Amino acid sequence: MASSKEQKKNQLFIGTFIHSKKLDELEYLHDTAICVDKSGKIVAVEPQCDLEKATGTLYPTLGWSAADVDATIGRDGEFFFPGFIDTHIHAPQYPNAGIFGKSTLLDWLNTYTFPMEASLSDLTKARRVYGRCVRRTLSHGTTTAVYFATIDVAATNLLADLCLAAGQRAFVGRVCMDRLGPPYYLDESAPQAVAAARASIDHIRAADASFALVSPILTPRFAPACSPEALRLLGALQRETGLPVQTHISENVGEIALARSLFPDAAHYADVYDRAGLLGPRTILAHAVHLTQAETDLVAARGAGVAHCPCSNSALTSGEAPVRRLLDSGVHVGLGTDVSGGYSASVLEAARLATLVSNHVAMPRNLQQEKRDGEREEEDKEKEQEREMEMERAKLSVEEVLYLATRGGAEVVGLAGKIGAFQVGMDWDAQLVGLGMVGEHEENDSIESAEEDRGNVDIFGWETWEERIAKWVYNGDDRNTRKVWVKGRLVHQRK
Amino acid sequence: MASSKEQKKNQLFIGTFIHSKKLDELEYLHDTAICVDKSGKIVAVEPQCDLEKATGTLYPTLGWSAADVDATIGRDGEFFFPGFIDTHIHAPQYPNAGIFGKSTLLDWLNTYTFPMEASLSDLTKARRVYGRCVRRTLSHGTTTAVYFATIDVAATNLLADLCLAAGQRAFVGRVCMDRLGPPYYLDESAPQAVAAARASIDHIRAADASFALVSPILTPRFAPACSPEALRLLGALQRETGLPVQTHISENVGEIALARSLFPDAAHYADVYDRAGLLGPRTILAHAVHLTQAETDLVAARGAGVAHCPCSNSALTSGEAPVRRLLDSGVHVGLGTDVSGGYSASVLEAARLATLVSNHVAMPRNLQQEKRDGEREEEDKEKEQEREMEMERAKLSVEEVLYLATRGGAEVVGLAGKIGAFQVGMDWDAQLVGLGMVGEHEENDSIESAEEDRGNVDIFGWETWEERIAKWVYNGDDRNTRKVWVKGRLVHQRK
Repeated sequence: MASSKEQKKNQLFIGTFIHSKKLDELEYLHDTAICVDKSGKIVAVEPQCDLEKATGTLYPTLGWSAADVDATIGRDGEFFFPGFIDTHIHAPQYPNAGIFGKSTLLDWLNTYTFPMEASLSDLTKARRVYGRCVRRTLSHGTTTAVYFATIDVAATNLLADLCLAAGQRAFVGRVCMDRLGPPYYLDESAPQAVAAARASIDHIRAADASFALVSPILTPRFAPACSPEALRLLGALQRETGLPVQTHISENVGEIALARSLFPDAAHYADVYDRAGLLGPRTILAHAVHLTQAETDLVAARGAGVAHCPCSNSALTSGEAPVRRLLDSGVHVGLGTDVSGGYSASVLEAARLATLVSNHVAMPRNLQQEKRDGEREEEDKEKEQEREMEMERAKLSVEEVLYLATRGGAEVVGLAGKIGAFQVGMDWDAQLVGLGMVGEHEENDSIESAEEDRGNVDIFGWETWEERIAKWVYNGDDRNTRKVWVKGRLVHQRK
Repeated sequence: MASSKEQKKNQLFIGTFIHSKKLDELEYLHDTAICVDKSGKIVAVEPQCDLEKATGTLYPTLGWSAADVDATIGRDGEFFFPGFIDTHIHAPQYPNAGIFGKSTLLDWLNTYTFPMEASLSDLTKARRVYGRCVRRTLSHGTTTAVYFATIDVAATNLLADLCLAAGQRAFVGRVCMDRLGPPYYLDESAPQAVAAARASIDHIRAADASFALVSPILTPRFAPACSPEALRLLGALQRETGLPVQTHISENVGEIALARSLFPDAAHYADVYDRAGLLGPRTILAHAVHLTQAETDLVAARGAGVAHCPCSNSALTSGEAPVRRLLDSGVHVGLGTDVSGGYSASVLEAARLATLVSNHVAMPRNLQQEKRDGEREEEDKEKEQEREMEMERAKLSVEEVLYLATRGGAEVVGLAGKIGAFQVGMDWDAQLVGLGMVGEHEENDSIESAEEDRGNVDIFGWETWEERIAKWVYNGDDRNTRKVWVKGRLVHQRK
């Protein structure tokens, strides 16, 4: 398959750039110029700069000649935003997005997931599914994806090849599972599982020697699906290779009970991974819905990150992850779509749901069982106010979930300082976002809209930039993501 | 403004028709023909029928000649579905969709809502906002909308006119509120509020004498914003006119406390409306998140309906409406987008969120505080299993939320038997839905997709119809709604 055109020139971007300054604050850089060199790295961020000024003053300092620069100028109402980082997505489950019925984790695995994953040992089918998944996630602005593949090495390698060809930054993990799965979808033994993991690592190294765009990632499915020996061997492989690790933790009540029963010697679920040497600064833990504080503290101490997957947690009735508590405890948190436990491949949808799920964490419970206002004892009031403030704090703002979708994700995947924002020295992993502007005379009753592909965000013109961003988070979709770049290369654009 | 072309011919529709048979069951009618007469009424539903058979055997029984029939044939993968019924939407708040920050009901009203509503006394602005709102909701497949307008009579009448011109079935309510609002946005007195309501009723009667498409609806904002006298006068107006009523109830803890304090003589919140004669079979109650069982039983006994607004309840941290309990108690339930407490004008989004919110109702709470499995006393097990079954029952299925979006909504708006399904005698309020079919060779790495406007639902071809519907509910959007009809008239189509 021929790769798309590589970046051959330096690039200049002019317009409004918006990115996270810190967890609860976005920075709005208007009338700004960003220069990106041929390697895809940001080499200048210049406020109050137009094309003329860039040509006259920026190019000379960079040693650029105007003829060697491609310029992209954001139009009115458009803005550049860092590409999204999906810290947890199962590419082989993509065709099942939205299909889960009323199931919860363990029956969902057997009913929907294992059969689909097993079927992708058919490489023709895998090519169709993975190709679609990569194109879709790019169209949603996902510049970095952390993929679970399947136990099949050839299909896993194909996924890595497709990411490389499409230009998506990716971590691609060959799944290890030597128990729990059905007979038709199971590693034969722990050593065989690790040998297969090695085979996939070797393939990716041959294709991208320095793992500059696509990296292998060690992928024990989750503790209940791995024998103690498999976990131990994978821990040894991690020490040997220094590669990142991804797995699941504490998603569902039944799963937690299962993990406890299968690892009776461990202090708790997190300790299972820790004992195997699989809990470290390069570890990505999906879900972490029900972690105890002791587990949370251990995760924070090890520097591991959590992939928060709100769509999935609500869809599979897993629970409401206490994101604020994780953050307060010092845990890195990013967002994961968790397709197909999560129904959507869009990180923007995950960000939207992250705010809503945090509101559910903050909701008054069982109101009817509680005494109503006015009936409460005076001495309870103080405690209640404290509890209310705590609940209020649980809520995640638009700014915060956008941080999780970009810089938070970068921390989780070990690329903080390299992706997730617009700073000199970072790679140009970015999306150009355009919102629909409502005309002055929209009352016409034509039954065919002239601007259908602008999506569902309607900007009337009086909104502040903060309000535009909120409108994007709540009503935006892939139609608003006009162009997407990874390492400076244009990897997606809408017509 | 010129109205779109009226239906001049009889119509034949051929293809797959899907609608709710009962709460938890969809009926799939494949290779079926439906005949719609010039008045927009369904006059035949014929299974196993193609164009030839329809012409040869159906037309004669209906007295139709082929020259006088327009035929619409669904393509492979497309299906006809009843139009959606949005039982609660604030048209003037449309520009605020997605803008709510971390606010809850009472501060949200003062910060975002009252200023926007008041500003629409400017009819130029109102035309722009209402025109956009009506076109957008039609594009989402909303064939019937129950609108709150504002206190401004002229703007309210404009909204009714726009619905008539666009062909959307609507209930349009001039809002009554003679207290709580800011000085700049308040009825002067109860009698003035009722006089204004009458003025709007008169306008709509002049435009649509039998309220065949657009009907007025009595609209006390909610109890805390209405004096006892205003409620009493509106109750009298209801008895006089027989018109439907819409208001809010029990959305938020603070609001409930406020209602109690303002109506100390009432037994509870629902009783406030009941005493005023405003709780009857034509009453639509938005939210009903925290109703006690006594209130629920009263609502059921009066035959009133509830507009369940999951997007709004999650966005404003209002709570999780116990929909299963409402249904079990015999209350009619439909779905409301509640723009802009709700962030989306799409009923499909409300349906999607209704499943997720019901999962939150069913979630295990405070797991960490509970004893873990294995540590529980044996005697508790039975009680726990009972509780688990109860929680499991709380979950709403895809089939159930689609019922709420169509037939449930029809019950709530008093049009059961007329809209919401495909049956002889019902009006043709329908949408043609098309899902994206993934080609056999999707692995190409072209950065421009050829089928962008097919939306985010990817059908690979092996899915059952039930799975296709689930995919539509979870990843569908307005791109999948190809055409929309109300009373037989085509009111929206995508290019």
